[in-house]
Amino acid sequence: MPRTGRRPGNQDTREAILGAAREAFAERGYDGASIRLIAGAAGVDPALVHHYFGTKDQLFLDAVQAPIDPGKIIPQALAGDRADVGERLVRTVLSVWDSAAGGAAAGMLRSAVGNDLIAKMLRELIMQRIFRRIAKVLDLDPVEAPIRLGLVASQIGGLIMIRYILRVEPMASLPPEAIVTLIGPTIQGYLDGPLPALPKARPGKP
Amino acid sequence: MPRTGRRPGNQDTREAILGAAREAFAERGYDGASIRLIAGAAGVDPALVHHYFGTKDQLFLDAVQAPIDPGKIIPQALAGDRADVGERLVRTVLSVWDSAAGGAAAGMLRSAVGNDLIAKMLRELIMQRIFRRIAKVLDLDPVEAPIRLGLVASQIGGLIMIRYILRVEPMASLPPEAIVTLIGPTIQGYLDGPLPALPKARPGKP
Repeated sequence: MPRTGRRPGNQDTREAILGAAREAFAERGYDGASIRLIAGAAGVDPALVHHYFGTKDQLFLDAVQAPIDPGKIIPQALAGDRADVGERLVRTVLSVWDSAAGGAAAGMLRSAVGNDLIAKMLRELIMQRIFRRIAKVLDLDPVEAPIRLGLVASQIGGLIMIRYILRVEPMASLPPEAIVTLIGPTIQGYLDGPLPALPKARPGKP
Repeated sequence: MPRTGRRPGNQDTREAILGAAREAFAERGYDGASIRLIAGAAGVDPALVHHYFGTKDQLFLDAVQAPIDPGKIIPQALAGDRADVGERLVRTVLSVWDSAAGGAAAGMLRSAVGNDLIAKMLRELIMQRIFRRIAKVLDLDPVEAPIRLGLVASQIGGLIMIRYILRVEPMASLPPEAIVTLIGPTIQGYLDGPLPALPKARPGKP
């Protein structure tokens, strides 16, 4: 159970660990950054990292300042009829962005666009916490999954950009269920529809 | 023909006009901001605005620091077989972002995400220079056009975000023609496919 009482220096230690964690996750990715490595970079004992942050998962979410853990809401969003999974995914995204967490999520996206370190961390969050989880829950073909999820991310990310950041009408003001009806089928197709044969990349492409 | 010789003060005048133009376009939109109004806000004669920037169109593009004029490339991109227009639009977007203009365009997007004034201008650019032009060239139904173009913007904007800003794999490294094959049909459907009936918005919605 972590201490909640404040002692002088606690906050600095926490911040030092978070700073080291951000660099490590951005440089090495989620899998490559161990608690031991992060502790070493912050100049503290690994036990102290566990003491402050619990698991590596939680440290990652705190480091990236994620307002919610997408890994927790995705399984709920995906549960149910496979034929409607696209609509449910869009509905879940909108409910998060329309909730109190939306402002923090927008802040994270703004930071990521302007700051390469945060962009790398957001990329890790998307790939590790979101893509992996969706691929597992939906049992996607491992060869196809990265492309399917990249397509999903491009449509959902653009929806967020247009509706919540740039606020382009009518996408900014349409009620959530209208957006679900419009974009759900696209997501459904990206997840479960046929993938086109891709043109061959030229060998020796730079 | 504008002077190209530098005189002391010219640069300041240009900057004052650009600053006034940014505020006016952001506050009043493209249509509501007249050259006369912008000149007044900058404390110069309208003839001087024309002298420095030519048309209102050009002043707008300079104010928003657009690296290219999307109004010029869109008609070329859309010309040709209507059945492939989605693929051609994606191909054009990729060719711009992969060109020298791509870095400047990324800079504009980064600024827009962090700065509300620039976000408003980028929104004007999207709606006035891109949406209007596409709707006109493709002769879209005026009632459906805003939704169709909002959907296109959400997919294209997200593609740019994922491929060029966050660089999520495999979308960041796939060759352009693979992206065209994957995303072209979505754009085609948004432009020319059937639109679903939208759920009615509740009356009195805030």
